[in-house]
Amino acid sequence: MSELEEIDKLNKKIATRMDRYLGRSFERNSLAYTILADYPSRPGKGLRPNLCLTACGAVGGDIENALNTATAIELLHNSFLIKDDIVDRSEFRRGEITLNRKFGFEFAINAGDALKVLSLTPLIDNMEELGVKKALQLIQEIQWMASKSVEGQIIELSWVNQNVVDLKFEDYYDMVTRKTCWYTCITPCRTGLIIGLEEVSKDQLDVMTRFGTRIGIGFQIRDDVLNLISTFQLYGKEINGDIREGKRTLILIHLFNSVANHEKEKIARILKKPREQKTDQEVLYIRKLMDRYSSIEKSMRVSKSFAMRARRILETECEWMTNMRWKDFFFKLTDYMIDRKR
Amino acid sequence: MSELEEIDKLNKKIATRMDRYLGRSFERNSLAYTILADYPSRPGKGLRPNLCLTACGAVGGDIENALNTATAIELLHNSFLIKDDIVDRSEFRRGEITLNRKFGFEFAINAGDALKVLSLTPLIDNMEELGVKKALQLIQEIQWMASKSVEGQIIELSWVNQNVVDLKFEDYYDMVTRKTCWYTCITPCRTGLIIGLEEVSKDQLDVMTRFGTRIGIGFQIRDDVLNLISTFQLYGKEINGDIREGKRTLILIHLFNSVANHEKEKIARILKKPREQKTDQEVLYIRKLMDRYSSIEKSMRVSKSFAMRARRILETECEWMTNMRWKDFFFKLTDYMIDRKR
Repeated sequence: MSELEEIDKLNKKIATRMDRYLGRSFERNSLAYTILADYPSRPGKGLRPNLCLTACGAVGGDIENALNTATAIELLHNSFLIKDDIVDRSEFRRGEITLNRKFGFEFAINAGDALKVLSLTPLIDNMEELGVKKALQLIQEIQWMASKSVEGQIIELSWVNQNVVDLKFEDYYDMVTRKTCWYTCITPCRTGLIIGLEEVSKDQLDVMTRFGTRIGIGFQIRDDVLNLISTFQLYGKEINGDIREGKRTLILIHLFNSVANHEKEKIARILKKPREQKTDQEVLYIRKLMDRYSSIEKSMRVSKSFAMRARRILETECEWMTNMRWKDFFFKLTDYMIDRKR
Repeated sequence: MSELEEIDKLNKKIATRMDRYLGRSFERNSLAYTILADYPSRPGKGLRPNLCLTACGAVGGDIENALNTATAIELLHNSFLIKDDIVDRSEFRRGEITLNRKFGFEFAINAGDALKVLSLTPLIDNMEELGVKKALQLIQEIQWMASKSVEGQIIELSWVNQNVVDLKFEDYYDMVTRKTCWYTCITPCRTGLIIGLEEVSKDQLDVMTRFGTRIGIGFQIRDDVLNLISTFQLYGKEINGDIREGKRTLILIHLFNSVANHEKEKIARILKKPREQKTDQEVLYIRKLMDRYSSIEKSMRVSKSFAMRARRILETECEWMTNMRWKDFFFKLTDYMIDRKR
């Protein structure tokens, strides 16, 4: 089975369970259910739940035990998407119009909240299968991840808001570690270990934190790149949307650090405008500069190098991942995260 | 000590603890801290944490044990306020401009999220003082409450959105039970009992659910009334804001059920307009009709009658509230909730 087929199979399990939780809390013919089930029912990559199940399987755990936690993570992910789309005023998500455009932002904001709240239910249900202690430990992990993620979002927002141009790669890595790595990679892997192992050690969790930081940074850079070079059909979002939103991607930071001062000022003036006021020409101007200064190429190299470092951690520090079939899949997922086309 | 002084004393404890949690997660000189600490540092009534501490004290518990949970409830309350103010496009909160007007809605929405996430921390910390089992039970209660509250908000929104005019008092009671009663009264009281008693019975929790439903409905009606008859200085929000927002209050529902059809249609046409497009004259027209049909008076009577029924539950069904000083304070709080001027 190819990794995409394997991912697909696991995603179906998660989708079924998400829907079970939605159906338990909301009547299926209600407006609330319709709105809440919208994003979760659009086909996504499901990388986060996949990482959680894979980490659990790789250390010899039963992945059935990780389904609740993986479901909670995916519900939270969907709630983050709803909020991001509101904040970024995005138009498309997973190939369709965003929830706020579809139902109005008042409903979208409440739907995001409801999914967040709902994500606690499978974590509470963990109590039965995993015992009270592990259930609480997992809630703690998820709480930590949600907190990191909001921190990262506030940092990113403040860069856009204050039109910050003097950023180093390290600033970006730090912001992305909070915004993306914890919730996309670190926490899924850590929780997978907690579930899969009888007793997880602090060292093992630390290894997952380092692995997840590296692959997460690689993943986010890949996402930034796809936003510029993919097609709407594959990527499901408007191309060059990050430029319109003024997002401080690694590519943009590289550009800022490459251009002459007068160009830097011109770029900053364009970025400062609200999204609707940026003309197509202005967006293309920045996009072309990114080509001229090889900012995309350079960023792709950085992404690859982070992925390599993540891979090496799996190779050399995870001898306690004894289930080879799942460990092998772990490598495939790692590669997929930065080679993906969507 | 008067009940207001008593409330004040307990609120200071909660404020200190909220700030401790904020300071633990965010650096005090960061933008994130500034935004997150904004609403919590504006003086509020603190009714929800007060109810939690009081319920705990009344059954003979040590209120110190309830401080974490009360703090979590107040943090969540603040996060709800932030979201409500965004969704309702409100201008003032607790006498100052709303968070979204102060920092922009992108930051406000993230601040609301962050407070929600942060509220889990004291609940996890409960583990040490109350043990793993009670800690999880409390998380479950809070999860349930948050879920009810979002349900209620979605119902209320859909009434405004679809400009529903055919509503009965019972529809309102049902919506308010979800939107307000759980998070303002039922859950604070239930969690107070869980913390204060060695082992709480299902019957005792049910009594609190019935008590909280009644006092909560009385409280919400009082809030709807204050929105019309108070002053900005006391109430801290714009007067008649509910009419501008098209909120289906008991007063409005009474009015709909009292007027002739052509008047009903005229009111509906006004309510349908977006908030900014309603003229002062139009708002005053509806406001005056409320006087003419005694809708406010009638609603105040309904509020009082719910409060009486809540009081009676305390008098006749709570013989297990054995700490008389706290039980007495419980009565005072009950009265305050519907007699309050702000």
